Amino acid sequence: MKIDLNSDMGEGFGPYSLCDDEAMMKVVSSANIACGFHGGDPDTMARMVRLAKANGVGIGAHPGLPDRAGFGRREIPYLADELRQQMLYQLGALKAIAASEGQRVSHFSFHAAMGNMVNRDPKLADLMIEAIRAVDPELIIFAMPGSEIEAAAKRASLKTLLLFLADRAYDAQGRLVARGLPGALVKDEAAVRARVRQFLVDRTVTTIDGVTIDMPAKSILVHSDTPGSLELARIVRSEIEAAGGTLAPASEVAG
Amino acid sequence: MKIDLNSDMGEGFGPYSLCDDEAMMKVVSSANIACGFHGGDPDTMARMVRLAKANGVGIGAHPGLPDRAGFGRREIPYLADELRQQMLYQLGALKAIAASEGQRVSHFSFHAAMGNMVNRDPKLADLMIEAIRAVDPELIIFAMPGSEIEAAAKRASLKTLLLFLADRAYDAQGRLVARGLPGALVKDEAAVRARVRQFLVDRTVTTIDGVTIDMPAKSILVHSDTPGSLELARIVRSEIEAAGGTLAPASEVAG
Amino acid sequence: MKIDLNSDMGEGFGPYSLCDDEAMMKVVSSANIACGFHGGDPDTMARMVRLAKANGVGIGAHPGLPDRAGFGRREIPYLADELRQQMLYQLGALKAIAASEGQRVSHFSFHAAMGNMVNRDPKLADLMIEAIRAVDPELIIFAMPGSEIEAAAKRASLKTLLLFLADRAYDAQGRLVARGLPGALVKDEAAVRARVRQFLVDRTVTTIDGVTIDMPAKSILVHSDTPGSLELARIVRSEIEAAGGTLAPASEVAG
Amino acid sequence: MKIDLNSDMGEGFGPYSLCDDEAMMKVVSSANIACGFHGGDPDTMARMVRLAKANGVGIGAHPGLPDRAGFGRREIPYLADELRQQMLYQLGALKAIAASEGQRVSHFSFHAAMGNMVNRDPKLADLMIEAIRAVDPELIIFAMPGSEIEAAAKRASLKTLLLFLADRAYDAQGRLVARGLPGALVKDEAAVRARVRQFLVDRTVTTIDGVTIDMPAKSILVHSDTPGSLELARIVRSEIEAAGGTLAPASEVAG
Repeated sequence: MKIDLNSDMGEGFGPYSLCDDEAMMKVVSSANIACGFHGGDPDTMARMVRLAKANGVGIGAHPGLPDRAGFGRREIPYLADELRQQMLYQLGALKAIAASEGQRVSHFSFHAAMGNMVNRDPKLADLMIEAIRAVDPELIIFAMPGSEIEAAAKRASLKTLLLFLADRAYDAQGRLVARGLPGALVKDEAAVRARVRQFLVDRTVTTIDGVTIDMPAKSILVHSDTPGSLELARIVRSEIEAAGGTLAPASEVAG
Repeated sequence: MKIDLNSDMGEGFGPYSLCDDEAMMKVVSSANIACGFHGGDPDTMARMVRLAKANGVGIGAHPGLPDRAGFGRREIPYLADELRQQMLYQLGALKAIAASEGQRVSHFSFHAAMGNMVNRDPKLADLMIEAIRAVDPELIIFAMPGSEIEAAAKRASLKTLLLFLADRAYDAQGRLVARGLPGALVKDEAAVRARVRQFLVDRTVTTIDGVTIDMPAKSILVHSDTPGSLELARIVRSEIEAAGGTLAPASEVAG
Repeated sequence: MKIDLNSDMGEGFGPYSLCDDEAMMKVVSSANIACGFHGGDPDTMARMVRLAKANGVGIGAHPGLPDRAGFGRREIPYLADELRQQMLYQLGALKAIAASEGQRVSHFSFHAAMGNMVNRDPKLADLMIEAIRAVDPELIIFAMPGSEIEAAAKRASLKTLLLFLADRAYDAQGRLVARGLPGALVKDEAAVRARVRQFLVDRTVTTIDGVTIDMPAKSILVHSDTPGSLELARIVRSEIEAAGGTLAPASEVAG
Repeated sequence: MKIDLNSDMGEGFGPYSLCDDEAMMKVVSSANIACGFHGGDPDTMARMVRLAKANGVGIGAHPGLPDRAGFGRREIPYLADELRQQMLYQLGALKAIAASEGQRVSHFSFHAAMGNMVNRDPKLADLMIEAIRAVDPELIIFAMPGSEIEAAAKRASLKTLLLFLADRAYDAQGRLVARGLPGALVKDEAAVRARVRQFLVDRTVTTIDGVTIDMPAKSILVHSDTPGSLELARIVRSEIEAAGGTLAPASEVAG
C-alpha cells in the first residue's frame, strides 16, 4: 500500500521561518513549495528544491495570493484573469528554479484563499486548470474529495491526488469544519493516530457528528505552519509505516 | 537584409505606465518583457504576451533586480546564487504566462543593474547563462558586442543576438558612454538617422571621439522608458525600411 | 468668497507618475498627498511637501490600502484595528516628513477603498476619527456631505471640509453615481463650467435625474489620476476666479 | 545605579516572528521597535507599543532599509536625501501609532545597514540627526561610544544613550569585531556574565586582544533575532540586579 504524505513548505523567507523545513523534508514524501507570493522567495524556493532532491521528495507548486502579511488567507477581489496570471507566474517561477537543479515540478496545490476562491467557482476552476494544463499537462492536481478543483481537473483530464487531513474535523458532507468552530482541530495525539489508522484500513473518516463517511484519498496533508506540525507529521508517518504502508510521492500514488 | 528592432516593454503595472506599449508593439519586432521585479506584474506580462502575439513580435524575458522604486538601476549586493534564483524565477514566470497563451519565450535580455553586475563578472555570467540553458537551451541571449554576457553565452553554446543602440554614444573600445557624461545621449533626429544608416550600410559606428569602429550587431535596441522613445523607434524603423531592410524578430535574425 | 480647490497628488513613485504634480501644485490650494501605500513613497512625499511649501498649498494626508497594483481601489478584508494602524502609520509618516521641511499637515482625506470601507461603517468611522484626533486634534477632515466620515468627525468635534466633485454626477440623495454607470462622469467642459458656476452661486447641484439639491461644500475636489485632470483643475480654478472667488487652503476655509 | 537594558523588537510581521516579544518585553527596559521597512508592520508596531505600555518599557523607533528579505542588513546605494526620507517616514509612523495609544516615542536607534551607512559618513549623520531633531528635539539617540552618530547627536545638542553589547567582542579602538571573524560572538554564559559585571563595576570591557578599555555606556543592548536572545537578556538582567543595579528606560538614564 503506497500513500503520500505531503506538507506546505518553504513558507518563510529571508530571516523568517514558519517550520523546520530541513526536518520536515525528511518526514514527507511530497512538498508543496510556496512560490513567493504568500510566502517563500526565489532563494527559499531553490533551497526547498535542493532539500526535496536530497530526500527523494516530490516537488509541487503551492501558489497563493500576493499577501505576505495575511499569509494568503485573506480573500482579495482579483478578477479571474488576474488570479490566473498570478497562479501561472508562480508555477512557472518554480518550474524554472527546479529545472536549474535538474528537477521537475510534478504536482500542484492551491494555497488558502486562492484555493477557496477557486473551489467556490466552477468557471474559475476551469480557467485555472486549463491554464495549468497549458503549462504542463502532466501536473498532478491536489484536491479535496468532491471539490470543484477535483471536478475541473477531471474535466480537463488532469491527474488528481485526493487529500485527507488527519487533524481536521469533517462534516457529514465531507467538508472541513471551519477553523473557528469548536472541534475543528483534532489536537489529541491518540485521536489523530486513530483517525490515520481508520483512514488507512477503511478509507473512511468519522465526522464531527459521529457519522462514518468515505474518504477516497491517497495522500495525507499536514500543515507546517502550526506549532507541533513536525511532530504531527512524524506521528502520521509512523502510523502509515505501522500499518504496513509505504510513503511515496504524488507521482507514484496518483492514478 | 533582416534586422531586429527591440525594446524593453511592459515596465509599468497597475495604474502605472512608462510607455505606450500598444503603439510600441506595432513598431518593434522583438519585445523584452519586464518580469515583475523592477517593473511589470503578472497581469501586465500577460497583456504584453497577447500584444506580441497579435503583432507577430518575438517574446523575450527581461528580468531585473527586485527594486521597483529604483527601476532595477541600483546595484544591490545580492550573492551570486541569489541573483541566479531571482533571474530564474522571473524567466520561468514569463514562460508559464506565455505558454498559457500558446506562445513561447524566444529570447532573454538582462535589465539594467542585473545586467551590469553580470557583465562585470565572468564567473557570474557563466553561472547565469548555465542556469538559463538549464531552463531552455534554445533561448537567444541579447548582449552588447564584446560583453561578458556574449562571451559566457558563446562558452555555453547559446545563440546570441548583438545589440546596437542608435541613440547612445560609444567610446573607442565599443563601450557605451555613461549616461551622466556629456554627449552620452544622441538626441538629434538627423544624427540618429545618420547613425542607423551608417550601421545598416557599413556595420560601423562613429565614436564620441570621431573614430569609426565595427558594430557587429544584428538588432537595434530602443529604450521605452524615456520621453520620445516611441518616436525614436519609428525613426529607426523608417530608416531600416528606407534602406531596404526587413524587420524580423530575434528568432529569425540570430545565428 | 474663499473656496478650496484640492487634488490627490504624489501618487506615483520611483519612475512612475500619474500626474504632472509640479503643474497641478500651481493650480490647487490643497494637496492630498499619497502616503506610500496605494501610491507615493517617502521620496515622493518629500517632493510634494516641498512643492506645496513653494506654492503656498495646504498639505493633507491621503492614506489608502497597501495595494499599489490595485491603486488602493480594491477592498481587502482587514480588521478594523488593522485599518486603523495602517492609517496611523501613513499619517504619522507624512507628519514627520513635513516637520523636517518646517511644514505641518493640516488636513486629512481618505483614499478610495479605505474611504469606502469607513463610510459604510459608523463604528469604524468613529475608530478612525478617534485615532486621527489622538495624533492631531487640529486636523481638518475632508468628507462628502452627509457621509459617515462627516458624521464621525462631528461627533469627535473635529473640523470638516465638505467636498464637491465638479465632474461627477450625483443622485437625488446627494451620493455620487457609481463610476461604471452611464453619465457618471461629466466630461463636457461647458457642462463642468456650468456646474461649478451653479455651485459657487447657489451651493446647489443638479442631479443626474434633473433635480436640484443642496451642495453644502466649501472645497472642490479634482482627481489627478485621469487624463485631462490638469486641464479640468484649471477650468475649475478659472471659474472660481471669474465668479470673484479666491482660492484658499483648507485651513482658511474650514470652519 | 540605574541602567537601561534594550532590545530590537517587533521585527516579525503577519505570520512571522523572530523573537518571543511578549516574554522579551518583560525583561528589557527599552524597546527599539522595527518600523515596517526591514521588519514589523503597522499591526505589529501597535502590538509592541501596547506591550511596552503594559510593561513600563520605553518606546524607541528602530528604522531600517526597506529590505525585508535582507533584514535591512544589505547596504543599498540610496542617496542621502532618500535615506533621510525613509528614516523620517518610519519615525513618524511609529510616533502616530504610539500617540493613538497615549504613548510617546522617547528614543531612536538605527538598524543595521542604515546605521552603518550613517556611521561612516559625518555629513550623512548630521543630515539624519537634524531631521530627527526637526521631528522631536527630545528624542534620545542610541549610539555606540565614539561613533559618528554620537558625534552628530552632540553637535545637534540631542541627548544620547551609549550602548554596550555584552555578547560581542570589541577591538582596542572600541569598535565591534565584525560578525564573520573568529571570537566576534561571546557565547559562553559565564563569559557574558563576567563581561556584564566588569562593565557594571568598572565601566570597562576587555578587548579581543586582552586589553582593558573604557566602556562609557549606560545601556546594554541585546539582539533579539538570534537563538537564545531571550535567555541572554535574562542573564544580563540578573547580573544587573545582582550588582544592585536597577533597570530604567532610556528616558531615565540618558543625560
